[in-house]
Amino acid sequence: MSDVSDVIRETLDGPWARVRERARTQTEPGRFGPPEADLPIEEYRARVHDQLLDLASLGFAGLGLSADQEGTDQGASVTAFEMIGHGDLSLFVKAGVQWGLFGGAVAALGTARHHELYLEPIAQARLLGCFAMTETGHGSDVQSLRTTITHDPATDELVVHTPDPSARKDYIGNAARDGRLAAVFGQLVTADGTGHGVHCVLVPIRDEAGAAMPGVLIGDCGGKAGLPGVDNGRLTFDHVRVPRANLLDRYGSIDAAGAYSSPIASDGKRFFTMLGTLVRGRITVGAAAGSATRNALTLAVVYGLARRQFAGPDGQDVVLLDYRAHQRKLLPALARSYALMLAQNELTAAMHEVLHADERADRGGAEGVEGEHGPGPGERDRRRLETRAAALKVANTSHASATIQTCREACGGAGYLSFNRLGKLRADTDVFTTFEGDNTVLLQLVGKSLLTAYADQFEAMNHVQAVAAVARQAGEALLERTISGSLVQRLVTGSRGRDADDALRDRGGQLDLFTDRERHVLETLAGRVRRARKDDPHQAWETFNDAQEHVLEAARAHIDRILLEAFAAAVDSTPAGPARDLLDLVGDLYAASTIEANRAWYLEHGRMSPEQAKDLTRHVDDLLVAVRPHVRTLVDAFAIPREWLVSDLLDPLTSEEVAASVSAGPAT
Amino acid sequence: MSDVSDVIRETLDGPWARVRERARTQTEPGRFGPPEADLPIEEYRARVHDQLLDLASLGFAGLGLSADQEGTDQGASVTAFEMIGHGDLSLFVKAGVQWGLFGGAVAALGTARHHELYLEPIAQARLLGCFAMTETGHGSDVQSLRTTITHDPATDELVVHTPDPSARKDYIGNAARDGRLAAVFGQLVTADGTGHGVHCVLVPIRDEAGAAMPGVLIGDCGGKAGLPGVDNGRLTFDHVRVPRANLLDRYGSIDAAGAYSSPIASDGKRFFTMLGTLVRGRITVGAAAGSATRNALTLAVVYGLARRQFAGPDGQDVVLLDYRAHQRKLLPALARSYALMLAQNELTAAMHEVLHADERADRGGAEGVEGEHGPGPGERDRRRLETRAAALKVANTSHASATIQTCREACGGAGYLSFNRLGKLRADTDVFTTFEGDNTVLLQLVGKSLLTAYADQFEAMNHVQAVAAVARQAGEALLERTISGSLVQRLVTGSRGRDADDALRDRGGQLDLFTDRERHVLETLAGRVRRARKDDPHQAWETFNDAQEHVLEAARAHIDRILLEAFAAAVDSTPAGPARDLLDLVGDLYAASTIEANRAWYLEHGRMSPEQAKDLTRHVDDLLVAVRPHVRTLVDAFAIPREWLVSDLLDPLTSEEVAASVSAGPAT
Repeated sequence: MSDVSDVIRETLDGPWARVRERARTQTEPGRFGPPEADLPIEEYRARVHDQLLDLASLGFAGLGLSADQEGTDQGASVTAFEMIGHGDLSLFVKAGVQWGLFGGAVAALGTARHHELYLEPIAQARLLGCFAMTETGHGSDVQSLRTTITHDPATDELVVHTPDPSARKDYIGNAARDGRLAAVFGQLVTADGTGHGVHCVLVPIRDEAGAAMPGVLIGDCGGKAGLPGVDNGRLTFDHVRVPRANLLDRYGSIDAAGAYSSPIASDGKRFFTMLGTLVRGRITVGAAAGSATRNALTLAVVYGLARRQFAGPDGQDVVLLDYRAHQRKLLPALARSYALMLAQNELTAAMHEVLHADERADRGGAEGVEGEHGPGPGERDRRRLETRAAALKVANTSHASATIQTCREACGGAGYLSFNRLGKLRADTDVFTTFEGDNTVLLQLVGKSLLTAYADQFEAMNHVQAVAAVARQAGEALLERTISGSLVQRLVTGSRGRDADDALRDRGGQLDLFTDRERHVLETLAGRVRRARKDDPHQAWETFNDAQEHVLEAARAHIDRILLEAFAAAVDSTPAGPARDLLDLVGDLYAASTIEANRAWYLEHGRMSPEQAKDLTRHVDDLLVAVRPHVRTLVDAFAIPREWLVSDLLDPLTSEEVAASVSAGPAT
Repeated sequence: MSDVSDVIRETLDGPWARVRERARTQTEPGRFGPPEADLPIEEYRARVHDQLLDLASLGFAGLGLSADQEGTDQGASVTAFEMIGHGDLSLFVKAGVQWGLFGGAVAALGTARHHELYLEPIAQARLLGCFAMTETGHGSDVQSLRTTITHDPATDELVVHTPDPSARKDYIGNAARDGRLAAVFGQLVTADGTGHGVHCVLVPIRDEAGAAMPGVLIGDCGGKAGLPGVDNGRLTFDHVRVPRANLLDRYGSIDAAGAYSSPIASDGKRFFTMLGTLVRGRITVGAAAGSATRNALTLAVVYGLARRQFAGPDGQDVVLLDYRAHQRKLLPALARSYALMLAQNELTAAMHEVLHADERADRGGAEGVEGEHGPGPGERDRRRLETRAAALKVANTSHASATIQTCREACGGAGYLSFNRLGKLRADTDVFTTFEGDNTVLLQLVGKSLLTAYADQFEAMNHVQAVAAVARQAGEALLERTISGSLVQRLVTGSRGRDADDALRDRGGQLDLFTDRERHVLETLAGRVRRARKDDPHQAWETFNDAQEHVLEAARAHIDRILLEAFAAAVDSTPAGPARDLLDLVGDLYAASTIEANRAWYLEHGRMSPEQAKDLTRHVDDLLVAVRPHVRTLVDAFAIPREWLVSDLLDPLTSEEVAASVSAGPAT
């Protein structure tokens, strides 16, 4: 590995580099990786179960869960999960269910007695559990779950029930084989018949021996397109009774007299606060999608540098990565993977701050929950975090699906063989685009949240300020930056006054182009939804429905911009030298290929002339030629241990071997 | 099924409707479909082997193969394969290898004695075989295969040999388990050491009992990302001797004295003629990709019409397909599937004509091969067929990958379960984009072939004609139409003189827009490659390499245009009435969404103003609203028997059941 790739690796490794380094030493082949051959589903499940216990024995879960939550390091925990994403994704999901979702629900929604009772055995994997939220009829619209949790004052118990087939808990990880206790989400109802919205209760689903508990019907989702080692199942409850103490009651409790109380009066606000505490899961999925994509890119790039096809002008077969079409397939995707990894590091750090600030507030006796009247600073940070988490979850997982597929195709028939991993990476990550929040629904959430932030800021200004802000092309106002204002200022100021054609060649100019697109899409969207009439729900619904594509476009523009900001900050923080220059070049490729992909927008909105658009394609081609010699360095900087990439794609016949056999001529 | 869908079905069914209808009666669940549960690989292979014998017993293969080739109906054969594409794709590929590739090689490259000896047992599946073309080191560049077939005059045998590891035959269907005889492609060398280019020889690889023949090393490719029922394997030959008579010698033979002769003098020309006779396989893969995509669209549309999520303005949860974002995912893809099916029907008919014309020429004593000096009319037809086959193979298979994936995501978690088929359809069709010709390589072939045809026509004109042709915006000249000139004339003339904004709303105007794009891309490409210097191979190679994206773009524009032409012809041939109106509307959606996807081009080249581009998006939205009520009719017209679509997605809780359970309120 070159010095350059070492320096780049340091930048990519980010704040929790030590967690990555520690993981890189646990490289016994197969220990946390996939099996060498396809296994029958039950053997696969058993294998992943054992890997989970092995992870637990290393203290893996303690990073994110501990009885007092003080000893945790949330950033380290997410980074550790990200590293598992380089291994078997079935194990990643199994661990995510056990510690991230199930354990996370107990930690975030429970109170001291739950923490004391459960967190230790959960962390040690002595108690395996499920996160039973999704129902057959409601996945995205969790607020409309139909499972009921009804308090019976006669016995002071909660009665958990599945009222109809659509309320069956579905696709639940750990349910079909291993789970003993489930965190079940449903509508909490007190004896007076009042509903209090969605809450979470712990329900034993199997006894020690593994038999289903009375009243609990357990089904098996069977084979899936991927993730064969995860035992997804279905849970149906027939008036199952648990003690009142099983209610995870941080945000809503029932007292001995059967009365409900909550620090948050509004059901809706409480619901979104509860969901918000689970943000870590969404961040982790995006992180692991990034790892899987880097595995795939490493395989496809190494293969593309060794494999040759069709004779070139000198009679030698040409290396695949010397073809422009092959470069176009892999290099812009590689540049985007860089941007995503850098942005994900910043998101992990932001999450670390917000979760630990929450915890400090809890310890300090503050309730950690804002009042009913407008968001306080802590709540604003949490909202911002949720939007960014949703944005990067979508960005990482959709990039994973598209890029791993491209890598598979770039390796032809070899890419289709199980042993070579790409098909498995593709199939395992596939569901990432629709679980932990469906990507389309999440993009809408991001778009709407940007719209709200925009409207809030707009309303806070007086008329003159507003007109001035809208008039400013660069859009410094109204958009929240994800990097320091002084860096933005430095970059953008440096680029002002240059020729328009040069904007693309300069980070500040690129930022202007990205920001302009986001701001304008958002602004026109705001104008459009202002037409929704509050007094006419049908008209309002139609207005929003017609604008769906516009909302998605706003979210996509936002994602592109925050990725570029992360790139700008990372280049800025890398010591001057060839590594920084190379990172800068990859940033240029990310920027140019993103603008090229969206050039219809720039043309439609008069931001670019037809001539400039055509130049853009040549500019991207020039960048591909410039990046091409460094492509091995760039995948080496991902520093994925060789043992984690078991695949013949890393050992194709080398170009030297083929050349040697060719020069020897056919033996007859 | 409505009358409208019946009429549309008749148009979609095309010339071999009777083959489709017969297949639709063979609907015993599972007979030609996938197993209900995932099977271990060896059980899966055994199952598909048995299904193959079952197919043979129905006389399936006789449509495409018979000892005298007179009794065949090539169009019916390809259509029958297309129908198998609705079932298990492992069976489709297994049958394609046995009858299409292995049997097809014997039929097309062999002569009377091979036909008499082998075609009957191959058709009856008493003799199972392999098509051993691809090598580990050469897949796309078949002309550079390294396996050698050397004549030994001492024994009058051919010696088949694998000279180095890169020459190993790889990914060969039927090789790992079932094949007895292999059609092996390699470099034919006569005793004097002269190479004659790639030829095909029949090599026994297993004895009756299934043991590998001496000198034949058989490997197993093991698990793959999909197609688990196909036993792909590897073949290495160590000086394996077969009689000289085993050479498939239609295009090149060795006489008893060891002298080589061929009706085609040039090695290169002979090679491409031999490859050209195998065009049927490529056409069949595109056809089956279309079937698989229609399966997926049927599942996703039916699910999207039943599944509801998030309350609408009336308090009821909204049907997924009423969301604009969901319509945008599925309906343009559905429209393109229509276009592809119609274009595929025309391709099948064209292939039928060309192959039977060949056969008639053979029977008439003509050699069916053109001379060395320029293409004759028969050869021109074959070349045109090859270009179209490559274009539609790419179009169908890339659409399959993208659309089946979209359908999977549109069904959320349910779409990920094996039982619901979408993951399996996705995984099985995945390799279609890289086998039977890698899509990127094929697109280049299409682009280059368009360029050659363009240059030929251009050169045939005098200077004044050429200038006039280039000046004509509509590009009537220089592009070969796939539909009758009189229909084009009628449509285009009808649209002339209208307002530019109306062009989009009228088939003739749409055709102009599509043709204009193809012509201009091709024209500028021609200008660009003219700069390649014949005296400087390095400069010429770089010029072509730099233009790769441009070549691909030309091919894509061509595909879009021939799909629109097929739509125009199909609407024209459908009896006037509501079915024709609906088909016309779907054609408008295909046209508008394709132009929208390529609007950057129209903007860059001044074909569209920014305002028109923005209107376009509204126009597509209007078409989605217009198509939405008919979406069930449109998938019903695919007429895929219910028994072939075993999946819970067709039986989600109906909206009525969910509504009933909601109005009953939660039971507690």
